[in-house]
Amino acid sequence: MNPDGPIPGEQALSWLDAHAEDRKRAGLSRQLRPRRPDSDLLDLAGNDYLGLARDKRVGGAAAAAALRWGTGSTGSRLVTGSTELHSELEFELARFCGTQAALVFSSGFTANLAAVTALTGKNCSIVTDANIHASLIDGCRLSHAQVAVVGHCDVAAATRALATKQTERAVYVTDSVFSVDGDLAPLAELAGACREHGAALLVDDAHGLGVLGEGGRGAVHAAGLAGAPDVVTTVTLSKALGSQGGAVLGPRKVIRHLVENARSFIFDTGLAPGSAAAALSALTTLKDEPERAERVLTNAMTLAVRLREAGLTVSDPASAVVSVRAPSADAALRWSEDCRAAGVWVGCFRPPSVPDSVSRLRLTARADLTEPELERAVDVITRTAPKP
Amino acid sequence: MNPDGPIPGEQALSWLDAHAEDRKRAGLSRQLRPRRPDSDLLDLAGNDYLGLARDKRVGGAAAAAALRWGTGSTGSRLVTGSTELHSELEFELARFCGTQAALVFSSGFTANLAAVTALTGKNCSIVTDANIHASLIDGCRLSHAQVAVVGHCDVAAATRALATKQTERAVYVTDSVFSVDGDLAPLAELAGACREHGAALLVDDAHGLGVLGEGGRGAVHAAGLAGAPDVVTTVTLSKALGSQGGAVLGPRKVIRHLVENARSFIFDTGLAPGSAAAALSALTTLKDEPERAERVLTNAMTLAVRLREAGLTVSDPASAVVSVRAPSADAALRWSEDCRAAGVWVGCFRPPSVPDSVSRLRLTARADLTEPELERAVDVITRTAPKP
Repeated sequence: MNPDGPIPGEQALSWLDAHAEDRKRAGLSRQLRPRRPDSDLLDLAGNDYLGLARDKRVGGAAAAAALRWGTGSTGSRLVTGSTELHSELEFELARFCGTQAALVFSSGFTANLAAVTALTGKNCSIVTDANIHASLIDGCRLSHAQVAVVGHCDVAAATRALATKQTERAVYVTDSVFSVDGDLAPLAELAGACREHGAALLVDDAHGLGVLGEGGRGAVHAAGLAGAPDVVTTVTLSKALGSQGGAVLGPRKVIRHLVENARSFIFDTGLAPGSAAAALSALTTLKDEPERAERVLTNAMTLAVRLREAGLTVSDPASAVVSVRAPSADAALRWSEDCRAAGVWVGCFRPPSVPDSVSRLRLTARADLTEPELERAVDVITRTAPKP
Repeated sequence: MNPDGPIPGEQALSWLDAHAEDRKRAGLSRQLRPRRPDSDLLDLAGNDYLGLARDKRVGGAAAAAALRWGTGSTGSRLVTGSTELHSELEFELARFCGTQAALVFSSGFTANLAAVTALTGKNCSIVTDANIHASLIDGCRLSHAQVAVVGHCDVAAATRALATKQTERAVYVTDSVFSVDGDLAPLAELAGACREHGAALLVDDAHGLGVLGEGGRGAVHAAGLAGAPDVVTTVTLSKALGSQGGAVLGPRKVIRHLVENARSFIFDTGLAPGSAAAALSALTTLKDEPERAERVLTNAMTLAVRLREAGLTVSDPASAVVSVRAPSADAALRWSEDCRAAGVWVGCFRPPSVPDSVSRLRLTARADLTEPELERAVDVITRTAPKP
């Protein structure tokens, strides 16, 4: 082979280089930054809202399950991948959230794909909020349904779309808590519109479970919709419950339907027993210590109030998420890097990942943040803020 | 409310009842059967090919990681969800399989969605084998690419489709080991056809890793394609590696591209540390005990030969999977139930889950099957076989 000549096969994926260059020029390069087990960064970027991912009881349950049940579920839930641990977790999740039944998935992503695709289809309309999670969008794309996107939290537009649907069936799809700003969907109003027009309501309560509602029962429970025959909820086990995986909650007939029809359930390996046990233990802990849910909101509020007092433009937190406006995408990135250098890890959201083109720092409050940590966070974020 | 009247909202999902009835009438009902930790069923249905899901070393590694790193990764791999454990696993997977780099996902399903969607797109053609895994099919559906399906393992048809593509770029997508019968794709020939027409080759080696190739390095390695600049491989951590999760392996530029662009990577929570540690420990065990890979094939062969000697119609196993023909769908189901009642758990594949409409028992061999277990399996399967 000519050492200066082209490498055979090199050309097939050479377009990736140009694509990466384009992203780099646009300032959109992303990089993984693996963390150490003993990192002393103050974490205001993760989704461990209740501080249970490092809880000794939860860790102990995961460890015991890995040794007792094995490190993997060994197959599809329909073959060897269902254990009594999965059933127990499903029973307890449904009981906690007030639904007839629940079904556990290996991730929230696959739970959302399953719920959207299996509950809709060719002869169905989907109406969605413009800002739903990527996994719900991908579910819509896979669904073969007629999809109409309406404005963010626009109940009137949602109602119009449901009223004018050209199909017999319809499902309205929304997040309960939108992840960029942590703002809430008007679930009760949306449920009313759905009921009026015979549509089902599918709610991704990923950021609501463990934080909102009585004892952290989630936004759907808080809206009085738990157990409704026309409401289906998806949750993650990887945020407030400090584990991995997702679940769909709803009427028993919905769960049966997913077991029989949802491709991302049938053709995926079941959740690892350790992760099922961790989620179950976290759920028990939350039931025993319901004040954890309230502390998330109190801490989010404290961060927001203090940052606003320091002159920053801050969202009114309705969930764990606190969003702090930055003057530009570059400034937001620099700001978050400066925070990190000063020991505080915050999220940085810039276009095209923000629906309104406004760059911001994204902070997530945890139940276990201490007063000195809150002070340190406010001090660092304020001190490193871009000068106006 | 009138107790005999309709329940408000009940109608929105009432179609599920009729749908379930239709499936039941067609004999297609499916049910979850949670297993106990101390089940004494002989497992010939799961994918724990190397018998490592219950290995004490692997379990110990998972348990230690849950306690050291936490029970969840706490966020997207791009935010807080990457740990040094993930990096180490990626490094070792790439080194073992002979590729430049690797990227770990929360499931094989999401790894396949990522690889297909991020490496194709609107201005790309996808050519696929007719029998690829559901997650690859869903990736194709999400890809916006022009998809052409060719006959199973038909290299001539694949070559024609690649030669007549109407787009600049093309990717051929295939499983290495097809899950129903365990037969192999002609990877070397397909790679040749791809190379000839400037296409990339994407191979799902879920059932090959840990079983095929030198020391279980997989079918892509066995075909001499590891490290090729135009070949991308996906694997699962939930089969031979006894854990949960998936990975994409390939050129460094592919991995960088997935980190920056793959929706099911960016918008999903990272794999739980315990599952990453389990996969890493299983990989180490496989490197230390490469004979495990060979034992899977030897045991599959033993099962096939003995069942054939007993008069059954059995596949020639090229992987862990042994497929035994049944006279009808009903007979296959009854046969598998009879095996289970006699203590042997086998898979049962019937239409519409089989590409050729032939119902069969599907057995999976494990490295740790003992001679008495092999004898028991053959005895039970033969004894319960439908009379011709």
